[in-house]
Amino acid sequence: MLPGVGVFGTGSTARVLVPLLKAEGFEVHALWGRSEEEACCLAKELGIPFHTSRSDDVLLHQDVDLVCIYIPPSMTRQIAVKALGIGKNVVCEKAATAVDSFKMVTAARYYPQLLSIMGNTLRFLPAFVAMRQLLVEGYVGELQVCDVRVYGPSLLDQSYGWTCEELMGGGGLHTVGSAIIDLLSYLSGTRAHRVHGLLRTFVQQNGLIRGIRRVTSDDFCFFQMLMGGTGSSSVCCTVTLNFNMPGSFVHEVMVVGSTGRLIARGTELYGQRNGSKSEELLVGDNGWVGPEVKEMPLPLLQGLSSMVKALRQSFQAKEERRCWARGPVATAPTFEDGLYVQTVVEAVKRSSSSGEWECVEIMSHEPDPNQNLCEALKRNKN
Amino acid sequence: MLPGVGVFGTGSTARVLVPLLKAEGFEVHALWGRSEEEACCLAKELGIPFHTSRSDDVLLHQDVDLVCIYIPPSMTRQIAVKALGIGKNVVCEKAATAVDSFKMVTAARYYPQLLSIMGNTLRFLPAFVAMRQLLVEGYVGELQVCDVRVYGPSLLDQSYGWTCEELMGGGGLHTVGSAIIDLLSYLSGTRAHRVHGLLRTFVQQNGLIRGIRRVTSDDFCFFQMLMGGTGSSSVCCTVTLNFNMPGSFVHEVMVVGSTGRLIARGTELYGQRNGSKSEELLVGDNGWVGPEVKEMPLPLLQGLSSMVKALRQSFQAKEERRCWARGPVATAPTFEDGLYVQTVVEAVKRSSSSGEWECVEIMSHEPDPNQNLCEALKRNKN
Repeated sequence: MLPGVGVFGTGSTARVLVPLLKAEGFEVHALWGRSEEEACCLAKELGIPFHTSRSDDVLLHQDVDLVCIYIPPSMTRQIAVKALGIGKNVVCEKAATAVDSFKMVTAARYYPQLLSIMGNTLRFLPAFVAMRQLLVEGYVGELQVCDVRVYGPSLLDQSYGWTCEELMGGGGLHTVGSAIIDLLSYLSGTRAHRVHGLLRTFVQQNGLIRGIRRVTSDDFCFFQMLMGGTGSSSVCCTVTLNFNMPGSFVHEVMVVGSTGRLIARGTELYGQRNGSKSEELLVGDNGWVGPEVKEMPLPLLQGLSSMVKALRQSFQAKEERRCWARGPVATAPTFEDGLYVQTVVEAVKRSSSSGEWECVEIMSHEPDPNQNLCEALKRNKN
Repeated sequence: MLPGVGVFGTGSTARVLVPLLKAEGFEVHALWGRSEEEACCLAKELGIPFHTSRSDDVLLHQDVDLVCIYIPPSMTRQIAVKALGIGKNVVCEKAATAVDSFKMVTAARYYPQLLSIMGNTLRFLPAFVAMRQLLVEGYVGELQVCDVRVYGPSLLDQSYGWTCEELMGGGGLHTVGSAIIDLLSYLSGTRAHRVHGLLRTFVQQNGLIRGIRRVTSDDFCFFQMLMGGTGSSSVCCTVTLNFNMPGSFVHEVMVVGSTGRLIARGTELYGQRNGSKSEELLVGDNGWVGPEVKEMPLPLLQGLSSMVKALRQSFQAKEERRCWARGPVATAPTFEDGLYVQTVVEAVKRSSSSGEWECVEIMSHEPDPNQNLCEALKRNKN
């Protein structure tokens, strides 16, 4: 039986998600927005019966069994952890820091019977599902290189906000790179152990962000990951993200191995085995009939749609409306995956500052909350 | 008046070059090959009256005023320096090391009246000539990012040889990366000051190279260059070279700036200004009617052809057959450019070993020839 849904967020993802949920038969009972006005406006537009700017009103809403959290990264942890504590199933976007991600992992471990997945949606896109399957079946032989490029227009909001702030989880690496980091670990079945990166903010001010305000989040990011085995047996991944290219949208994921290669361009998958003369189309563009959203690239949009379908199957498999079957969402990124992704993001940022390769070390216990204070005091002393 | 030409080399470039020279009206009088047999065979095929395996026989040949050197990198310096010493004009391929390149620079400086250019041919390709012009005119605004990808089949020869040996100048970085490094300095009008790179040899043995022999030259190379100004005003260049992709050939050079971008795909140039809805074709494929060569990508082939045309114009402008006009070859890479390129190549290799950003420091005096010996002795001692 399908659970009632509460949605957090009034941004472009939430705006797309609600119709997708409804199309699969979910009832969306409540909407949370940062201000009453935002919440009211979108609730009216999408036909959601209840709206609020107080998070508890959604979390404690008796018809809400599944909470979808698509809000600025810095607020995600708080809502997600609380939702699990109240006994609700959670789908959420990434948090802002590894510490936040770690707290989410702790909560998810504490409530293993509750659904807790990252709403990081490229894994569900049919092209990537097929790519993963073909990699497992040995289409490319031994995996050597992954090469990813995402080019597009600016990610900044119309007005100054978290998207401009590196520390708030803004920027290409955090916003788009996260999904790519997750995707590559899904595709390769391994994780990054060393990374190297370079971040830039080419556009620090624009027509809307000026005066004393400056953008600190990256609009160009370029990183390498060494994944899997060590030394020469590891897979080299290179990722180039460029959001200074208005009017374009390129989303290309290529994996190259010893006997062939696979390339996902947008939502289509192509392959070529060594020895064959040309590329073959493996997964076509299946004629997307859902909404088109200017701010949201088609691979993410279709991935989101496929994830909602998987959620429907997961809940439909059970009688009880809060219960779900693991099968349909088995490949979804867990909160542990979310922590891994956040750890890689932070390692890339460190590398961009240090200029060196940085190790990816997953947090295994919560850092002392006084540590930063201690370090600040130490620095002051020197 | 056009000079008589002597060609060094029997490889695929020499094989293409001779017909191109003839088509422009040059007479090719002599051919050098490593063995009498190779030289004889190709001379017969191309209708060259004289062939030899002794370099002096070409250099001292009285009808030879221009020497074109397309031989393995480790042999280039010796022939090029000698040719200049004898008073011949020189077009040559890259050398194997920065020390060799420096010796060539010294010779070229000593004989400024002689033509001495690197036969590094992407600069002459019409698409890149136009790209350079548009960059100067401000098509893309302030240059931010260059992104280059060259993918193709293995660069290894049929049998074990210098192409397999990193120290002999083999590998994707040295062979193809060199031309890209030169091109990016031509396009941007600046030079790299820091580089970071990663080299891999994924295929260390194949059907023809086996037993105790192993390939040491890279078949995957990925590097970044910071060019021009320092700090955030420098241009970020990323270059990905992958030669484990049989059946494919991708040659893409993209430059992104504050107000638009230019992309050369193969021999065609496209552009898009911010605000315009789609790419415009700026330089089309002009219907190449010359020879097609399996081992040689079309951009290099057409670049070579354009360079030969420029050489013809340069010599035609003067009466005396050894004299040449600077104008038509003013944009050709000099031996100084060759030294710069070689220095970057070596810095990328160092970075791949050290894992760190490496500075590009152009050699200003010849290193002590005993230094290597001293270092070897020191190492032995420890």
